[in-house]
Parts: sequence; C-alpha cells; structure tokens
Amino acid sequence: MDYKRGDNPDKPGTTDPKPAADRGDGPDDVTPEGPVAFTAKLEICDSYPTHNGPLRFTNVLVNEGAGYSPGTGIFTCPQPGLYHFTVHASTYGRAQFMIYKNGQKVVSAYHTTLDDKKSQMASIGSVIQLSKGDEVWVDLWGACRNAIFVSKDNDTVFLGFRLG
Amino acid sequence: MDYKRGDNPDKPGTTDPKPAADRGDGPDDVTPEGPVAFTAKLEICDSYPTHNGPLRFTNVLVNEGAGYSPGTGIFTCPQPGLYHFTVHASTYGRAQFMIYKNGQKVVSAYHTTLDDKKSQMASIGSVIQLSKGDEVWVDLWGACRNAIFVSKDNDTVFLGFRLG
Amino acid sequence: MDYKRGDNPDKPGTTDPKPAADRGDGPDDVTPEGPVAFTAKLEICDSYPTHNGPLRFTNVLVNEGAGYSPGTGIFTCPQPGLYHFTVHASTYGRAQFMIYKNGQKVVSAYHTTLDDKKSQMASIGSVIQLSKGDEVWVDLWGACRNAIFVSKDNDTVFLGFRLG
Repeated sequence: MDYKRGDNPDKPGTTDPKPAADRGDGPDDVTPEGPVAFTAKLEICDSYPTHNGPLRFTNVLVNEGAGYSPGTGIFTCPQPGLYHFTVHASTYGRAQFMIYKNGQKVVSAYHTTLDDKKSQMASIGSVIQLSKGDEVWVDLWGACRNAIFVSKDNDTVFLGFRLG
Repeated sequence: MDYKRGDNPDKPGTTDPKPAADRGDGPDDVTPEGPVAFTAKLEICDSYPTHNGPLRFTNVLVNEGAGYSPGTGIFTCPQPGLYHFTVHASTYGRAQFMIYKNGQKVVSAYHTTLDDKKSQMASIGSVIQLSKGDEVWVDLWGACRNAIFVSKDNDTVFLGFRLG
Repeated sequence: MDYKRGDNPDKPGTTDPKPAADRGDGPDDVTPEGPVAFTAKLEICDSYPTHNGPLRFTNVLVNEGAGYSPGTGIFTCPQPGLYHFTVHASTYGRAQFMIYKNGQKVVSAYHTTLDDKKSQMASIGSVIQLSKGDEVWVDLWGACRNAIFVSKDNDTVFLGFRLG
C-alpha cells in the first residue's frame, strides 16, 4: 500500500494538542522550499530622505516569498540560505547608503558630484548568508549625505533573491 | 510492485491521436527545466545610438537557453519564472536607458557628466516575474540622451538569468 | 529487492587499492553539488593598487564552496556551470578594472572624475560559463588608472555565485 505522508490510516491517535503546522518557529519547524526574490523602488515623494536607518522602498514590483516589507523597508529572511542583494541608486549631489544585516554594515557606497550636482547612478551589492528571521535593509547616513532621489526617468531600486 | 511513473504495464491503450511531445504551446505544454542565462555586449560600432526602442547588444558571450536574440536585442522568456536582469553601461555625457518588459518600463537609469564629458559607468537592474514568451529588453531614450558607448577598455553589457 | 546505491550485499569483492572518494581530479571525479558563492572586499591598506594583474580582495565575507582565494584574488571554479560575477568599485580619479577568465578579458569598466577627483561608484558584471578549474579574477590596468580605494564608508567588492 502506498500512502502520502501524513495519510497513514494506521497512525495511532495522538494527544498532541497542537498539530505540526501550528508549531511555529521551534526546532521542528520546516519552511517549505520555494523561490524568494524581491524588487522594490523608491517613490518620488520619498526622495532626499533626511532620516537615518532603513530606507523604505514602497513601490514593490516583485515580492515572491513575502520577505520584503514596504512598510519598514526591511527584508526578513523566510528561508535560511545564501542571498544576493543589490542597490542601484539615483544620486544628485552627496549620497551615502549601506546594506545592513541585523544592524551591522555589510557593504557601503558613497557617491558625490559636488561641488556641482549631477544626476548619476551608484550601485553596491553583496552575497549574504542568512538564517531564518535575519533582517537586511538599505541603511541611510542621514541629512548631509541624502542625495538619493527618484523621478519618472530615474529609479532607485533595492533587490534581492535567494540563490539556487 | 513498484513502477516508475509512465511505466505501468496495466495502462489501458489510448486513442489520443497526438502524443504529448507534439502538442506545441497549448495549455498542456511543458517546457523542460534547464538553466537560462545570457550576457551580451554592445559593439563599438553601435556606440551612441540615436534611435529609440531596443538596444541591440550583438556581441553574445553566453546565451544558455537561447532566450536572447542579438538581432533584435530582445530576450524572449523560454521558461516561466523569476529572472534577474542588469545593465552596466559605459556613458560619456548624457545617457538614459531603461529595462522594459512587454513594452512597459520596469526600471530606469539616467547618468550625466555634462557640461563636461567623462567616461563613467552607470548600472540598473531588477528581478522580473516572467511568463513564457514575455519579452525583456534595454530601451533607449534616443538622440538627446544617447551617450552610451563602447571602446576596447569600456564595455556596455546586458545580462540576465533565471533564478534557481 | 530494493537496495540503496552502494548497499548491494551481492557486490563482489574489489581489489581496487583506492576507494572512489580518493581518486582526485581524474575523469571519474564527481564534484558534489552544493551552493557556490562568495563576496570579498578590498582592505583599506590595499587602496590605489599600482600593480597590474589580479586585485586581491582579502576581507572575505562569504566563501561557500571555497572557490575564492584571498591570497591570490582568484576564484577557481569548484563545480562546472554558469556563474554570475560583479564588481562594485569605489573610485577617486581614474579607475580601470576588468573581469578576466583564464587570462582573457570578459568585461571591462573605466570610470574617471578627472580633472577633479570625486568619490564615485562604478560597477561591471557578467554571466560566465565555467569548467571545473577555470579561474576568474578582477584584473587591474596598473599605476595610471589605479584610483580604486576603500575607506570605512566606501567599499570595493568582488562577488560571484553559481546559478541555480
């Protein structure tokens, strides 16, 4: 006889008060495999951000696996593994941005066209090893290096995906 | 007894006049899995393009899965899924380029060094969800923002691959 | 009867003096599948390199599959397949860098802010088909185009990974 996993009619009764699917993040938890990938763009109205901390890319193009949150700008790893992240920023003056993992800087980019200002692209990226629940985001320097912008012809993009 | 799928000796005869492999692109069509990835470079003679529409990268380095056409500059998706595309452009003045999917702009890059001209790199990319037959290309603004070039020491590159 | 590979109790005795796992890189060698991905950063003390040949990124963030050597700056392919490589460089003046495969240039980037000097990002990348043992590195032009640097806020990064 051939039964699908979990369909065994001879399985003895269990007194476990919680079925496996409800057990949450304990050591028995198994996340189903599936692609994880996102791309999100900065909105025009969020250009020249003067705060520090995570940059919120609220225009989500793809969010397979639902790891990226446009409300916070943070990608929370839904499956452990190796990930690749890239930022392509439209800059106009002095711009600093970093990719952070759990509050630690991984890679950092600085691009300036001062004393003049010019509209230019600047990119940075990294492969990062993540455990489930690890957080990755684009961090900002703040007011004096905030020349990151968007127009209808200039995008600022944050993207990531799980490797194979 | 244990048979591989399709090997059941008790399978009744079928009157289906067309075997599965000949059915073409109908809803039953199954594209074989395999890697899809390409990289193509602009040729020196195609520098400073003055047309708009797709940029043709005719120097093909890799074209696994045969999705990219150097004749048109268009990548036609051979397998549905998530793809990652990037453009790295050598610019010299005012350059605008966009990644398009089926005639719609996905992401856009603008990089200028005017009033002077300098040889500089500008990059943009995105993860894009594609169905079979979807088309992706690098679109041009045209004559007034066409400072995209190639020399023996400066490349302009379009690359893409299917994720895992 | 159904045995796992290698468990056949009827297997005749062998006089092979070396078990398969010790045979090394001969034609029978099979590399186990597994993710291959690395990211390495240039150290501050290696800024403005005046040599030509491979750039050594000695600050290794990830090196799954152990393909990348910080001592030489060279990635040696541990598993055949398609790979994606990117360089994101912090530049300050005149910078030239190329991705090489086995001594041949694949893609090349040049970025200058002269006559002034400005801190700017420049990126290049490619998908490359590799056989086991193929070597990939970031090659330098040398002294007159060596404005590639690192500070605590500016990174220069070499990254690569095997596709799917």
